[in-house]
Amino acid sequence: MWDQHEIRLTPRERGFHLITDDIVDALPRLDDITTGLLHLQLQHTSASLTLNENADPDVRHDMEAYLRRLVPGDLPYFRHTLEGPDDMPAHIQASLLGTQLTLAVRNGRLAMGTWQGIWLGEHRDHGGQRRIIATLNGE
Amino acid sequence: MWDQHEIRLTPRERGFHLITDDIVDALPRLDDITTGLLHLQLQHTSASLTLNENADPDVRHDMEAYLRRLVPGDLPYFRHTLEGPDDMPAHIQASLLGTQLTLAVRNGRLAMGTWQGIWLGEHRDHGGQRRIIATLNGE
Amino acid sequence: MWDQHEIRLTPRERGFHLITDDIVDALPRLDDITTGLLHLQLQHTSASLTLNENADPDVRHDMEAYLRRLVPGDLPYFRHTLEGPDDMPAHIQASLLGTQLTLAVRNGRLAMGTWQGIWLGEHRDHGGQRRIIATLNGE
Repeated sequence: MWDQHEIRLTPRERGFHLITDDIVDALPRLDDITTGLLHLQLQHTSASLTLNENADPDVRHDMEAYLRRLVPGDLPYFRHTLEGPDDMPAHIQASLLGTQLTLAVRNGRLAMGTWQGIWLGEHRDHGGQRRIIATLNGE
Repeated sequence: MWDQHEIRLTPRERGFHLITDDIVDALPRLDDITTGLLHLQLQHTSASLTLNENADPDVRHDMEAYLRRLVPGDLPYFRHTLEGPDDMPAHIQASLLGTQLTLAVRNGRLAMGTWQGIWLGEHRDHGGQRRIIATLNGE
Repeated sequence: MWDQHEIRLTPRERGFHLITDDIVDALPRLDDITTGLLHLQLQHTSASLTLNENADPDVRHDMEAYLRRLVPGDLPYFRHTLEGPDDMPAHIQASLLGTQLTLAVRNGRLAMGTWQGIWLGEHRDHGGQRRIIATLNGE
């Protein structure tokens, strides 16, 4: 069985956000899959998708604090600066973390570890609505 | 054909470890797939999966030495510190390298390059047993 | 429907290169898929695949300039140095960015965002021809 949806996420502020529920709620046919996979692909180049801790929000804070220092906005050799100092770091963070994820599905649920959740990394100051193509495949 | 297993890896010390044989040995039905994909998803947020060199162990040493310096444990702005100084760096490394991989399958084998192997990145000092959900799909 | 090809890319210089057309042109049966996925796996450990901006080439320049500084070639603790100072940084960049990608397919086309393209990251000074196993699956 194949099923594909476009999911539109409400705008988030810069940083990391837990979106597991946004994804699962948009996929009514997840229930029908005993064994399969869910693929998620952001349609953007300045945000990211990653799996990480679903509990303590300090982990999301620290990830953002670390990445802001790892990829500063004012590097003197940057040429792609027309869209502001947050833009090129956002492109770099998108590739370091990735913009697509594939997740195991078992017995109608995402087969994630106890502490795993799906994070949106919003790397722009004002990124606006973000779109994801979600593709379910299984039996 | 779909096939899904939970693979339990014996505890490894901090650093990178070649686990291609652990994965292949746990998948007896890999032989039956002419064309397909294998998806691997760690069930943890402080370890990683990546494809890299399967021969010289110095590559694994250098990767670990580099990442320890890239993400030190004592950054003053970290808030998530209750589980020790190795914990927040482990979360960051897990997202930089990723916790899931999809691999091509051809004629009953993983279609990897001559020098490619599957690495477990153990990013905690005492990470313990790690679990992977392995999902095979193909014909 | 499953379809699998080996794609051989002409040698590129060190840096990032837009290869969306190389991939699509090698997959005549992409047209036949209404809903599906395309998986790409580099057969190498010193190059990478990532999704990023398909328009302004300055983004590719800045990504390369940033990564050269993030992972220098002359780190004193590197042991894997026999193949030259560009080799170990190439292994590290390959794992930071990743060597495999899964992409959504819809109505016979890659379901990418307006600004998304497939990038090859060539991380060696003289990497030569690079091979990709492309696996299409869909209905």
